[in-house]
Amino acid sequence: MPRYKLVVEYDGTPFTGWQHQTNGLSVQQTVEEAIARFAGETVRIHCAGRTDSGVHATHQVVHVDLAREWREDTVRDATNAHLRPRPVAILSAMRVPDTFHARLSAVRRHYLYRILNRRSPPALDIDRAWHVAWPLDAAVMHAAAQTLVGRHDFTTFRAAECQANSPVRTLDRLDVERVGDEIRVYASARSFLHHQVRSMVGTLERAGAGRWSVSDVRAALDARDRTRCGPMAPSMGLYLVGVDYPD
Amino acid sequence: MPRYKLVVEYDGTPFTGWQHQTNGLSVQQTVEEAIARFAGETVRIHCAGRTDSGVHATHQVVHVDLAREWREDTVRDATNAHLRPRPVAILSAMRVPDTFHARLSAVRRHYLYRILNRRSPPALDIDRAWHVAWPLDAAVMHAAAQTLVGRHDFTTFRAAECQANSPVRTLDRLDVERVGDEIRVYASARSFLHHQVRSMVGTLERAGAGRWSVSDVRAALDARDRTRCGPMAPSMGLYLVGVDYPD
Repeated sequence: MPRYKLVVEYDGTPFTGWQHQTNGLSVQQTVEEAIARFAGETVRIHCAGRTDSGVHATHQVVHVDLAREWREDTVRDATNAHLRPRPVAILSAMRVPDTFHARLSAVRRHYLYRILNRRSPPALDIDRAWHVAWPLDAAVMHAAAQTLVGRHDFTTFRAAECQANSPVRTLDRLDVERVGDEIRVYASARSFLHHQVRSMVGTLERAGAGRWSVSDVRAALDARDRTRCGPMAPSMGLYLVGVDYPD
Repeated sequence: MPRYKLVVEYDGTPFTGWQHQTNGLSVQQTVEEAIARFAGETVRIHCAGRTDSGVHATHQVVHVDLAREWREDTVRDATNAHLRPRPVAILSAMRVPDTFHARLSAVRRHYLYRILNRRSPPALDIDRAWHVAWPLDAAVMHAAAQTLVGRHDFTTFRAAECQANSPVRTLDRLDVERVGDEIRVYASARSFLHHQVRSMVGTLERAGAGRWSVSDVRAALDARDRTRCGPMAPSMGLYLVGVDYPD
């Protein structure tokens, strides 16, 4: 069966998250049904990174096996036609070898977390960024973030329900910058634990607000204790923005 | 009566436009009702630039006269509290002299027009940008735009219902740039005719698509004939992003 790699963009707001849930519509189901309608077969798709309810993606990657060969442009355009009016779009479709697996072949995931840091609530970025009304010091947040970069036991920043075998991960990048009223946190790693990015951002926010010192953040990591994590940042600020594969 | 200058951000999607209409809720009415609820009086606000239905603002300016003196922060925060859950936010409130008038004192308006130029429809930018699926050449659009800069009779780019006394305007800036999948058009002038920005963008799109030459765009301007305008760009791509006042 021919295998296709799809790059997918979505607004996570109206969905229960990536995965099938009993309490509403998932992104996965939405995409599977759109492909099924054009291809005339039931399909199962596999993604590079499962996102929670409310989390967005500008560059999620999935693979799907279809019964017959289609032109790449047809897979993209026909799926998009059946996705309307849902806020999900296939940005590209590419024929790939059977050895390609969206999750297992991925060598790096990239996330962006957006904080709208101003007194007034968002009008244009409702459900698109975390609104923090008190002043945050992005330089302090960046300094605190650097204590988390590298290979560590991230138990402190891991959801209780995380199913990963090991809490050890290598965080390649955690950069914080201010752009006007917005604070952007860029996180890159081969893989992340469940809720790791939102847990780290919630902890960095405490440092940016002056409530925690840089060494408090490092001490929280070293404690390997979930109760030492800052309050988890909400889902609406998080975006999956890239997935890397070899070559 | 103390006069206040407010900077307002809004998502134009759910509104009938800035001005009161009989067929739905306007931004003006929404802001007036929010101020009225906290100040306990009926108010009338005046804006720097009336926007059409679906047009957004990151920096609209209004003025309002209140019966009594309030702290600037109170005007901002109390109005925001009463604006929820509408997608309108007061970014700042400032006490100004009675000689300040949001419309009459303004010396320059700045607009941004966003085109999402890619094959796939928007997922995250639904109602936030004009989706043009065919390739546009931003350099050609920029070259065509330069033929419109300066003092001209803009009859070609003026709505039939425009109420301005004269079709002559001085366009200070019309820059086009590509940022990834997005084409951004920046327009600045002391004032614009009704539908002028959207009419110019719709005409530039024809040039970017290779259907019109740069000299076709200039010839359309010189014709001073509304029927020579390109198809008007839709409202959802337009943002009022700034208003300048002397000092």
